[in-house]
Amino acid sequence: MTAERSVFYISDGTAITAEVLGHAVMSQFPVTASSFTLPFVENVQRAQAVKAQINAIFQQSGLRPLVFFSIVQPEVREVILQSEGFCQDIVQALVAPLQQELGIPPAPVVHRTHGLTASNLGKYDARIAAIDYTLAHDDGISLRGLDEAQVILLGVSRCGKTPTSLYLAMQFGVRAANYPFIADDMDNLKLPPALKPHQHKLFGLTIDPERLVAIRQERAENTRYASMRQCRLEVGEVEALFRSHQIRYLNSTNYSVEEIATKILDIMGLTRRMY
Amino acid sequence: MTAERSVFYISDGTAITAEVLGHAVMSQFPVTASSFTLPFVENVQRAQAVKAQINAIFQQSGLRPLVFFSIVQPEVREVILQSEGFCQDIVQALVAPLQQELGIPPAPVVHRTHGLTASNLGKYDARIAAIDYTLAHDDGISLRGLDEAQVILLGVSRCGKTPTSLYLAMQFGVRAANYPFIADDMDNLKLPPALKPHQHKLFGLTIDPERLVAIRQERAENTRYASMRQCRLEVGEVEALFRSHQIRYLNSTNYSVEEIATKILDIMGLTRRMY
Repeated sequence: MTAERSVFYISDGTAITAEVLGHAVMSQFPVTASSFTLPFVENVQRAQAVKAQINAIFQQSGLRPLVFFSIVQPEVREVILQSEGFCQDIVQALVAPLQQELGIPPAPVVHRTHGLTASNLGKYDARIAAIDYTLAHDDGISLRGLDEAQVILLGVSRCGKTPTSLYLAMQFGVRAANYPFIADDMDNLKLPPALKPHQHKLFGLTIDPERLVAIRQERAENTRYASMRQCRLEVGEVEALFRSHQIRYLNSTNYSVEEIATKILDIMGLTRRMY
Repeated sequence: MTAERSVFYISDGTAITAEVLGHAVMSQFPVTASSFTLPFVENVQRAQAVKAQINAIFQQSGLRPLVFFSIVQPEVREVILQSEGFCQDIVQALVAPLQQELGIPPAPVVHRTHGLTASNLGKYDARIAAIDYTLAHDDGISLRGLDEAQVILLGVSRCGKTPTSLYLAMQFGVRAANYPFIADDMDNLKLPPALKPHQHKLFGLTIDPERLVAIRQERAENTRYASMRQCRLEVGEVEALFRSHQIRYLNSTNYSVEEIATKILDIMGLTRRMY
């Protein structure tokens, strides 16, 4: 084991990519890290303040801070590169080998991965429209306008429908509706008539009853709603419905919302639009 | 200019990181790309199917497809590396130089960047709770429980409050409430008494009237609500309120929801939790 290292994630944009990738890289080493995320380092002045912060840590600890960064403007990146940190440019690390393969030099442009530009404004508006659509069709609020849905998630209360729908809309611009099956439906569980014309867009979410109990207990301790018996009953009935109607479904228990959302896109053959 | 190249983004997880980073790299070259995103390439069988797909394109076009990938299991990655593609491992490209700096070998672990593990389950539940909180406090629905908010966004209708709040909750686990000022408030615009105790958590969003008109016209064409006169009035009044109450605020017009959210965290000094 080595001493704790300071790690910086720096970008002229949101620093989301630098942070995600840097975490993945750091996780490959048995090093304890204390990390700093510094977005919007867009000018020389802010870069100099960052450089001073990096150098101060180096003076104090004697260990070079590790720096994962992505900055397009040469004069701003130069300031970071002149710091005492061990600097890795996450984008450039892949540009150099690619230049060889393509046989052409890069023509750097200011690329705002998570930015808004004239050319992606229409796409961006479509994404905001998808969020609006999903909020208006959350939790079965409205069964009108399902023609416009690209996917309709079904499942019991608290199985992950709402976060998954919102993630689909937010990250991929997918118009996702969702519809809950509630306790009162269980005596004679049927697919609501309004959903039948949209059979091909239906996707089921299920969950292990044990996990469902834990989640529901957080909300409504010691209620029938949160009892093992009720959770088992609901999950069993709903899974049977999915099977009898040949609705594709996924058990969400061990997956994050990112994983559930991307699996749904994959299974349903929906193209992702990245933003 | 060169011919169109096929580009693959491949991962044993969601492939979100591979895609975002790969896009950033590709944008540095004047190349037209037709791209394929292949998540959940977790076993040799699926990897072989991917390899066949890469090789088929190479046979057909005579151009090696470009492959940005991240796969932890050696036997699975080996299959991809044996394809005819020009393969770049987005994580390993940074691991090798870091190994030198740290002077220790990597101890690879299966790292699911967007995955759910026993160790991050508590954090994950907190994130889902943040989404629940934000939905329950969207658009001024409830002014109760604002003690629990980490940030309360203020602004006119359609200036970006809801997408920003949801992004803060979804991506960073931040409990974000939001409150709209509506047309009826404008005659005598005041900060609602319920918000006053939370002054330090208030953050304003504003927007150029021209852009606001365009957004509102989409929803409600030729209404007073969407008129330039009304939009100018509302934005002017609300900005004056922000200034007189010393509420920090941001003009959202030229920023994406990612940028607005990270700027708010940065300005308010809120720590981001990544998921």
